[in-house]
Amino acid sequence: METPAFLRRLFGRDARGSATAALALCRALLSERGEASGATLAREAVRAIEALDEAQREHFFDALAGEFSPSPSAVARAAQAYQAEPGPRTLARLQRIVEPVRQELFRRLNMAPGGTAALVAMRTRLLESLGAHPQWRAVDDDLLHLFRSWFNRGFLRLERIDWRTPANVLEKLIEYEAVHAIHGWDDLRRRLQADRRCFAFFHPALPEEPLIFIEVALTRELPARIEPLLALEAPVADPELATHAVFYSITNCQDGLRGISFGYFLIKQVAEDLRRQRPKLKTFATLSPVPGFAAWLAGLRKRGELSLPALEQPDWHQAGDLDGLQKPLQALCAHYLLRAQRGDEPLDPVARFHLGNGAVLERVNWLGDSSKTGLARSLGMMVNYVYRLEDVEKNHEAYVNEHRVIASRAVEKLARECALARDAQNEARAG
Amino acid sequence: METPAFLRRLFGRDARGSATAALALCRALLSERGEASGATLAREAVRAIEALDEAQREHFFDALAGEFSPSPSAVARAAQAYQAEPGPRTLARLQRIVEPVRQELFRRLNMAPGGTAALVAMRTRLLESLGAHPQWRAVDDDLLHLFRSWFNRGFLRLERIDWRTPANVLEKLIEYEAVHAIHGWDDLRRRLQADRRCFAFFHPALPEEPLIFIEVALTRELPARIEPLLALEAPVADPELATHAVFYSITNCQDGLRGISFGYFLIKQVAEDLRRQRPKLKTFATLSPVPGFAAWLAGLRKRGELSLPALEQPDWHQAGDLDGLQKPLQALCAHYLLRAQRGDEPLDPVARFHLGNGAVLERVNWLGDSSKTGLARSLGMMVNYVYRLEDVEKNHEAYVNEHRVIASRAVEKLARECALARDAQNEARAG
Amino acid sequence: METPAFLRRLFGRDARGSATAALALCRALLSERGEASGATLAREAVRAIEALDEAQREHFFDALAGEFSPSPSAVARAAQAYQAEPGPRTLARLQRIVEPVRQELFRRLNMAPGGTAALVAMRTRLLESLGAHPQWRAVDDDLLHLFRSWFNRGFLRLERIDWRTPANVLEKLIEYEAVHAIHGWDDLRRRLQADRRCFAFFHPALPEEPLIFIEVALTRELPARIEPLLALEAPVADPELATHAVFYSITNCQDGLRGISFGYFLIKQVAEDLRRQRPKLKTFATLSPVPGFAAWLAGLRKRGELSLPALEQPDWHQAGDLDGLQKPLQALCAHYLLRAQRGDEPLDPVARFHLGNGAVLERVNWLGDSSKTGLARSLGMMVNYVYRLEDVEKNHEAYVNEHRVIASRAVEKLARECALARDAQNEARAG
Amino acid sequence: METPAFLRRLFGRDARGSATAALALCRALLSERGEASGATLAREAVRAIEALDEAQREHFFDALAGEFSPSPSAVARAAQAYQAEPGPRTLARLQRIVEPVRQELFRRLNMAPGGTAALVAMRTRLLESLGAHPQWRAVDDDLLHLFRSWFNRGFLRLERIDWRTPANVLEKLIEYEAVHAIHGWDDLRRRLQADRRCFAFFHPALPEEPLIFIEVALTRELPARIEPLLALEAPVADPELATHAVFYSITNCQDGLRGISFGYFLIKQVAEDLRRQRPKLKTFATLSPVPGFAAWLAGLRKRGELSLPALEQPDWHQAGDLDGLQKPLQALCAHYLLRAQRGDEPLDPVARFHLGNGAVLERVNWLGDSSKTGLARSLGMMVNYVYRLEDVEKNHEAYVNEHRVIASRAVEKLARECALARDAQNEARAG
Repeated sequence: METPAFLRRLFGRDARGSATAALALCRALLSERGEASGATLAREAVRAIEALDEAQREHFFDALAGEFSPSPSAVARAAQAYQAEPGPRTLARLQRIVEPVRQELFRRLNMAPGGTAALVAMRTRLLESLGAHPQWRAVDDDLLHLFRSWFNRGFLRLERIDWRTPANVLEKLIEYEAVHAIHGWDDLRRRLQADRRCFAFFHPALPEEPLIFIEVALTRELPARIEPLLALEAPVADPELATHAVFYSITNCQDGLRGISFGYFLIKQVAEDLRRQRPKLKTFATLSPVPGFAAWLAGLRKRGELSLPALEQPDWHQAGDLDGLQKPLQALCAHYLLRAQRGDEPLDPVARFHLGNGAVLERVNWLGDSSKTGLARSLGMMVNYVYRLEDVEKNHEAYVNEHRVIASRAVEKLARECALARDAQNEARAG
Repeated sequence: METPAFLRRLFGRDARGSATAALALCRALLSERGEASGATLAREAVRAIEALDEAQREHFFDALAGEFSPSPSAVARAAQAYQAEPGPRTLARLQRIVEPVRQELFRRLNMAPGGTAALVAMRTRLLESLGAHPQWRAVDDDLLHLFRSWFNRGFLRLERIDWRTPANVLEKLIEYEAVHAIHGWDDLRRRLQADRRCFAFFHPALPEEPLIFIEVALTRELPARIEPLLALEAPVADPELATHAVFYSITNCQDGLRGISFGYFLIKQVAEDLRRQRPKLKTFATLSPVPGFAAWLAGLRKRGELSLPALEQPDWHQAGDLDGLQKPLQALCAHYLLRAQRGDEPLDPVARFHLGNGAVLERVNWLGDSSKTGLARSLGMMVNYVYRLEDVEKNHEAYVNEHRVIASRAVEKLARECALARDAQNEARAG
Repeated sequence: METPAFLRRLFGRDARGSATAALALCRALLSERGEASGATLAREAVRAIEALDEAQREHFFDALAGEFSPSPSAVARAAQAYQAEPGPRTLARLQRIVEPVRQELFRRLNMAPGGTAALVAMRTRLLESLGAHPQWRAVDDDLLHLFRSWFNRGFLRLERIDWRTPANVLEKLIEYEAVHAIHGWDDLRRRLQADRRCFAFFHPALPEEPLIFIEVALTRELPARIEPLLALEAPVADPELATHAVFYSITNCQDGLRGISFGYFLIKQVAEDLRRQRPKLKTFATLSPVPGFAAWLAGLRKRGELSLPALEQPDWHQAGDLDGLQKPLQALCAHYLLRAQRGDEPLDPVARFHLGNGAVLERVNWLGDSSKTGLARSLGMMVNYVYRLEDVEKNHEAYVNEHRVIASRAVEKLARECALARDAQNEARAG
Repeated sequence: METPAFLRRLFGRDARGSATAALALCRALLSERGEASGATLAREAVRAIEALDEAQREHFFDALAGEFSPSPSAVARAAQAYQAEPGPRTLARLQRIVEPVRQELFRRLNMAPGGTAALVAMRTRLLESLGAHPQWRAVDDDLLHLFRSWFNRGFLRLERIDWRTPANVLEKLIEYEAVHAIHGWDDLRRRLQADRRCFAFFHPALPEEPLIFIEVALTRELPARIEPLLALEAPVADPELATHAVFYSITNCQDGLRGISFGYFLIKQVAEDLRRQRPKLKTFATLSPVPGFAAWLAGLRKRGELSLPALEQPDWHQAGDLDGLQKPLQALCAHYLLRAQRGDEPLDPVARFHLGNGAVLERVNWLGDSSKTGLARSLGMMVNYVYRLEDVEKNHEAYVNEHRVIASRAVEKLARECALARDAQNEARAG
């Protein structure tokens, strides 16, 4: 169907590039006739929104946050009516009144071909500027509410990614990978060979866009260092002999879906599937960075609570004698992971994720990642979290209800040996 | 993962068959730990719900309508807070408070394998008994709200159904067909041959369940009678020569999705696709029953407003001389379709659907369907509605805004010739 | 590309329906220019051949057997040249000369869309009349030679057939089934439910045409009777509990591929696949008819070598007292299967197939099939052949090299107890 | 099924790496029991052959050429019998006797998983050493004969290659491209964007191996130079506006299929498909190298028949004034393409291919390819051959039957202006 006549009347040949036009189309889409003209109007509206430049988009978001919100007087009336006579009828009316028409607008925009992708992109833009425009929060709330419903676990498909996957999906892995950057196609191919696995969640409405993906190495022991796993020239091991599945990278791909957590579901399903397919796999574990460690330690040192002059050397990790540094630093790392907190939870975001998922903090690896990023953020430390599938829920409950973090004896011991811990104990005893 | 220990503790080996168990599982699913145990708990809960017998299900729905509704006191407090200080913060809180936790429960149940199907089935059961249990209305509102969002046009896939379609889908057409019953596989095959088309909408979460399907005959003229289209032995015409696409049956398949309209989208997309694929197709029209005609006429006769003794014969349509009956009955049918109303809309549900979609009432066909059902409901009448794709939106607007129904001159003339119409006109003049 | 001008010149608008035209097209296809005009000419030729009526086809086959055969004088010359100077060059020339151009013709016809199907259909027709036209034998030899190459096991795909299979494939099973007729779609569905399996071989050039298919029942014991397996109302058993895979029907679908054996490969691969997928399956066996038994016995009786008056009753198998009949008849059946021979092989074709495959004759079942066909051909007997996968090759070798047939002790014993066997032994002793 | 016992007896745990073992397995495969043990033996034999090193392979090929050839005495006897009594029976016997058992061996090897690929690889190896081992010619003849039958046009699938194609296929394009090397993934992606097309033939038994592929640019004019088409940074044109489809690269991928021509079929089908899909495309043409031009000219110069001192400069094409060179060199190129011959056909292999296909030599482009290879082989010349689909067969016939090459007037004129042509004409007149 052609662009309807009324649109041409309103905006000339091309309705794009103007917030006024975009808003008019949105209003038309919400009108009675919007229901019938459905996909046509939705397509025009989506195009108009996509063509907005930054200034126009600000205007558009302002209107979304204003005009498409519930009317305060209507809300007040409905609230009053409910209070006067609480019951199903007045409640239903109140519910209807407080729901912003924005939500219906978003649902109708979704009728356009590519509508879901356009809405996710819209939220990406919104989030980029939300800090400067707190009044848009309500718009974001509505998008997030909708996406939580649409991107429900029940609608996601787990897919294996390998060298048979279409190139247009593979190039997105290269683009999105956030933990250990993929340096081109040769690097990617190595990560997809017989001793590696890669899985992603997809949504039917975004069939070529991974939502999240995880990279797994099949090994014969729990690795302590990331470099050998990533080395292009690493010999390909026989996956039949593998006993360990090591999750060494997990990346959320869509900024527009921030706040919807896919990671736990992905790890759990991948672990269960691998266990079923390869009964020889006994250990499911990660090799993870400790991204907040360096900053936390720098804070301590800045505040004079700790002195580690060896770290002041630019290339400290290549110094001749690291023996004196390794033990204290490992202990500090264990202490950081187990004791440093934000509210009731671990300060380290990766720890928060895996421990919250019910994994166990198994081992702290010295110089597990001596890449520039690895040194800058984690002081080279890498950590293994182990997922024991039969304990995951129990651990998760302990974490949620009692803020209890499960670690191996070795890590517990390390944490106790940390200078800070001893100080605290001494103080406690002294006190 | 096995059934979690806590479930076994609570319910013994089998949590099924008890509303108490089903509700406990729902509560667990809504708890903090529900998020982590995700699919496991959801699966158990879905199984428990599916195993309920009728009495248990009543109990379960009662609890859904009660316990899982917003707390009146909390709503009252939030309403008061909003009135005291209207603003984004108090509004957001009010929105959160009035949303029943049921909605989140349904979203979490959807994580189970087959969760979407289970929820649609749940609403089917709910609707069956809603008349007797008006207190469940709020539960239905929430399911409908969710389904409107999930079964958004943007998530549906149009698929052609033909003789290459898997048998497990085809047998559902036989089961569901609601307009002209399909009498077994031979009948179905005839409806899928080269001069017929069939299309259905599917949702990714119900990949083997058509939501709605439409049957189309490719013909060289506008047909007036249904029997020749349905005849098993009808010769297969060359589709290359067809100029008319005749929609002769459209069926909504899922009772649990009642209230979500797929029909307009389906007709529109099928018409557009066919026009693109086969430029020789010029006319897109229906051959439709008039299902309310007989009842309406019976009402008139009962109230003595009309006398048609010929219809009192059991096999009146096979009587020797129908000449005297045909014209008045066609005129009555035209009058019924154009003038008999419910509110501002046509009384006849099929007319309401097609005219509301923007189609034109083109022709009233005498003895278009002399099957038992056709006689009982439509007195044998069949009607052609024509979809002129370029006028559809304009007609729809006229229908919605001005309650104007578009009919061909011939039908308009017929309606004017109806005895009832003349009476009315005479009265009007007399008046 | 249009029908080339030279064809229109030669045959008018339509080259079909004339053997002369078909042959001219075949000659053109074999000419130099045939290589370039490729698919166009091939398509025309295929159409022309398919449009021949019976008389024209006879003419066409005669020409194929004559004109498209090697020239006797050329063969004689090449043979002489070889004898004069045997060597690679003269051999290569002889090979080239003796190969009929027919083979190249068939290869070029195969370039047409649907060419493979057309050639298979051509051989079907040829075989139907071969008896009356022995001069066509050479044409058949060439088609068979080609098909053996094209339908090589390496090019076949094994596919599972179930209720998700497209209807146009399923209806072919109904049409082709040759052992236990499928009585419509309900019967078919029962044979595809959870406790049944069906597999077929397909060739990429005939994607919707099964070449051969096998039906399997998953059971908990070795069945002796076919009726319970075929009963529509038989309860569906849990396949998880099955220990036996029972091949109860195997059908070659394409008459045009007669002489190419798919059966052994199919049974072997199905058995291996099932064993891998379901380790609980321990026994792979058939429930098979004994289709030559009745005729063989009738021969004996006719020649007065045997007298079995009980069998003369029309409904002998429903007679009150069958005790006296069962044992002798089972013994005769065992004797027939193990001793009655044609050349060095069992007289019974089904026995020849399974024993030649390396199966073991396990059991002779009294009244295993009391259907009309079962009584008429097998006198109601059904037999279990067991495939012990680890012995299959050894048994096959014994069969091929020593004409040794492997049977269970029970069947061996039965065969020894047969009156005919005792007579023979007595004679032997007496002699 | 496990490696059969008899193999283990013969060769120990591992039958690989020995020509003796490979040959024994081949003999077993050809024996009666080979038929039954089918895939197992074939798999073992294929593995054994693949594991041969070069010396062992020589031994293996020698045996194939010897032992697996027809027995000379048997051939002689059958030839004699035919001569004594020519007829269908003796002919059939002669045909059977002269067919090497190798052919049956190859057909049985094809039963192995990956058998077809292994046989193609075997021929690749064979061809590499055929020059040094002319006695293997007969083996090659048999493989070629078989492959012509198996890789018949009727069995090939045309597939579009684009950025959605699996990476394992795409990387093969990078590896195989023989005309204009693909420099990595970015280069490949540019060749697959909206204004480019790529198509390949595949065979069902080699689903991830292109047999041949063609690269097409959709343009608005006939291009004279290759560099702008290959430039990574070339802006992507709107394919809707294209009027020309330019075939700028065509590559045969499988050395083991040498001698089987796919190119003509590919060009023809791609042209027909594109014409149907995009009616705006009016011109189907190539931009092709003239790979034999430089060598031919060097020959002339060496023999003193021509003197072109300007070409002696190393970077002659970048010299300031090329005006004096362009015209004579273009004329020489036209002359070379139209007059220089090998037998009755053009000397230039690319000209032979396209002119033999029925294309027209349209234009000779000066400095159409100034890459190193382009200068070295074609002296920078590129040529456009135009495929006029309605004339292709007529041109092909003229080419085959009258050795007539069709060129545009401009090219004909160029060729007449060539110094060599004028000399020849002068001589002719003088003579």
